[in-house]
Amino acid sequence: MPHFNPLIAKLSPPPVPSVLAWAKAYDGARGPLIDLSQAVPGYPAHPDMLKWLSKTAASPAFTGYGAIEGELSLRTAYAAHVSGLYKASIGVKNIHITSGCNQAFICAAMAVAGAGDTVLMTNPFYFNQQTTLAMLGIGVELIPCDAGTGFLPDIDAIASALKPGVRALALVTPNNPTGSVYPPALLRRIFDLCRANGTWLILDETYRDFLTEGSGAPHELMSVKGWQNSLICLYSFSKSFCIPGHRLGAITAGPAVVEQVAKIMDNLQICAPRSAQAAVAKALPALDDWRAGNRAEIATRAEALKQVMSKLKGWKLQAIGAYFAYIRHPYPDIRSEFVAEKLAKLAGIVCLPGDYFGEGQEGYLRFAFANADAPTILQLEERLSNFNLPGL
Amino acid sequence: MPHFNPLIAKLSPPPVPSVLAWAKAYDGARGPLIDLSQAVPGYPAHPDMLKWLSKTAASPAFTGYGAIEGELSLRTAYAAHVSGLYKASIGVKNIHITSGCNQAFICAAMAVAGAGDTVLMTNPFYFNQQTTLAMLGIGVELIPCDAGTGFLPDIDAIASALKPGVRALALVTPNNPTGSVYPPALLRRIFDLCRANGTWLILDETYRDFLTEGSGAPHELMSVKGWQNSLICLYSFSKSFCIPGHRLGAITAGPAVVEQVAKIMDNLQICAPRSAQAAVAKALPALDDWRAGNRAEIATRAEALKQVMSKLKGWKLQAIGAYFAYIRHPYPDIRSEFVAEKLAKLAGIVCLPGDYFGEGQEGYLRFAFANADAPTILQLEERLSNFNLPGL
Ligand SMILES: Cc1ncc(COP(=O)(O)O)c(C=O)c1O
Ligand SMILES: Cc1ncc(COP(=O)(O)O)c(C=O)c1O
Repeated sequence: MPHFNPLIAKLSPPPVPSVLAWAKAYDGARGPLIDLSQAVPGYPAHPDMLKWLSKTAASPAFTGYGAIEGELSLRTAYAAHVSGLYKASIGVKNIHITSGCNQAFICAAMAVAGAGDTVLMTNPFYFNQQTTLAMLGIGVELIPCDAGTGFLPDIDAIASALKPGVRALALVTPNNPTGSVYPPALLRRIFDLCRANGTWLILDETYRDFLTEGSGAPHELMSVKGWQNSLICLYSFSKSFCIPGHRLGAITAGPAVVEQVAKIMDNLQICAPRSAQAAVAKALPALDDWRAGNRAEIATRAEALKQVMSKLKGWKLQAIGAYFAYIRHPYPDIRSEFVAEKLAKLAGIVCLPGDYFGEGQEGYLRFAFANADAPTILQLEERLSNFNLPGL
Repeated sequence: MPHFNPLIAKLSPPPVPSVLAWAKAYDGARGPLIDLSQAVPGYPAHPDMLKWLSKTAASPAFTGYGAIEGELSLRTAYAAHVSGLYKASIGVKNIHITSGCNQAFICAAMAVAGAGDTVLMTNPFYFNQQTTLAMLGIGVELIPCDAGTGFLPDIDAIASALKPGVRALALVTPNNPTGSVYPPALLRRIFDLCRANGTWLILDETYRDFLTEGSGAPHELMSVKGWQNSLICLYSFSKSFCIPGHRLGAITAGPAVVEQVAKIMDNLQICAPRSAQAAVAKALPALDDWRAGNRAEIATRAEALKQVMSKLKGWKLQAIGAYFAYIRHPYPDIRSEFVAEKLAKLAGIVCLPGDYFGEGQEGYLRFAFANADAPTILQLEERLSNFNLPGL
């Protein structure tokens, strides 16, 4: 047997491919597959987005190596976007483009922590954050998030977990898997605790574009004096522009963080793919209205799911937010991985089991409701009410 | 001051941007800039390559998340290519696509080593391999490569460095920076030493497409029984197809390695950019003749450089290979970083100083001669013979 790094050997295989395999095993008996597993909107990218991607890919201007930190055009456009959204003063020097938000996270984590250090996460957590830290040998401590408080992280638990030397606290808001949206005031309290302890707050805001209209800035942390010494914000272009296959994300942080991340990125992959960066630089201001339309559409989908869940016996909508719903299934003694497998294979409903997101999550399923349109979501009522777990 | 991971904080900034800054400071007095710094061919990508890149980028088929291991089309095409080149039996399960060869290297390194382990490299080395291992806390031991033996790694030094527990030996052939091409028989001896010690051989063959025509398979290691337990081969599509901006590379290894790498890649960036993968899947067989033509053209450039160097006093062509030449400058007491800076700023010749590639390399400069056509290379004779280091 070949000898591998034990930290890698003991990682479980990535979960999404196995869920897709369950979906393939569905025979169509209950109607077309309803895919609520993938965290990508169920509508296509805007035709202009494809046009720009095609045009920049045809250009010899983007075939060479590019700046490690990203194309100036995209860094400029994104800095302006972030400045507006958070009413903060963010410049090009605050932005590092990455190949997606998973890469943004590993860059942020490596910049502030190494093997043997400790980083805090929530429970439940976004699994790639956990596996990223585990494979780097970074120790993880978990902050519980209770169903009773809408899966918000417990502030007292954070306070007592922030022991000296804790390198970072990683949060995801709007949350994956629960959908929970952390209120600005809570984020501010958490941020102050982190700063007082010399701990970085790493904030993954991949789903922030799906917050309901008029909910204001997601937080005001980038207006706090000296925020650059304690805050690293992460974002993904995958979801908002429906282009995960083009692999683009961004880090917003102080220039000193950007400098450290550039050293890491040079080793990880030199720079993010260039032509797609140039295309998104155009799309970011130009497709603003389209994104607002999507936001409204996704709110409709959330309403449809609420309506369905209110009619079902045994199933409980425990939390619902910008993109995901976290649902308690009716089988208290059965692991959600088993329930999700049967739902996929027998009822043609594909979702992710809570098990994949941490300890004590076996009672839950994550529905990525943004993937399906409202009429499709309404079909869940019949499918779920007719669903019986075999052998029960 | 914000507190960073000390392994990252102490990394030097990536070297290439600082060299580009020297080039910008050249005033054109000696004629147009001669850029021998960048490790990309000086000719453009094939028009069909751009056409395919554009077409696949326009397609909604590649906007979604893709398979972690890579597009089946590219894995299939690359497996066939590798099988032919090495006369080996390589299938889809042996291939993992990455976002370039730096990423292929970090995936390979993480798969087999963690913080506190030891990996061997040569001196001189390709700097990103060194910084990658350093930032992961992996210890590095260096195998000297002597000018006298054409910068081939010393087999006795390898034998005595292969202590129990050494996780991997990383080699680059054709070599960056020296250009040195490791003969198949030497690679076989090294491989046997590695296997006997339970050590992985990681072979970066980014420049193998520039080996002179008719030189046969670069090595026969993939025909050795059980090679899958000891060998990981790395490749880059950046150089051969002139598309580094699109970020594509590949790992060829046993299926067990591919499985470990997939777990790492899922955290690093989920998958390589998809549309470019589909485009390269077409180009790999289709642009075979074009690449053969480039190989011949680059051989012409090598001849031009040999001719120039034979006429210059004080400058010595210490080694020349598939892509790079390693040149001893005439200032024995002066660091090559200073010489390279002055060459760029005063003579408009941009190259990389040997200093960047390891200890004891201050007498050398790396010329990426493949970047400039033969007539341009011939101009080096006048420029170098008229060059005087200020203050000497
Ligand atoms: C919270 C969160 N962060 C990051 C990502 C990764 O996004 P990207 O496609 O930008 O790597 C996801 C994708 O599902 C996510 O849910
Ligand atoms: C030896 C070697 N390996 C890897 C790379 C990185 O190539 P890529 O663009 O595929 O990341 C380079 C680029 O200069 C190189 O010289």
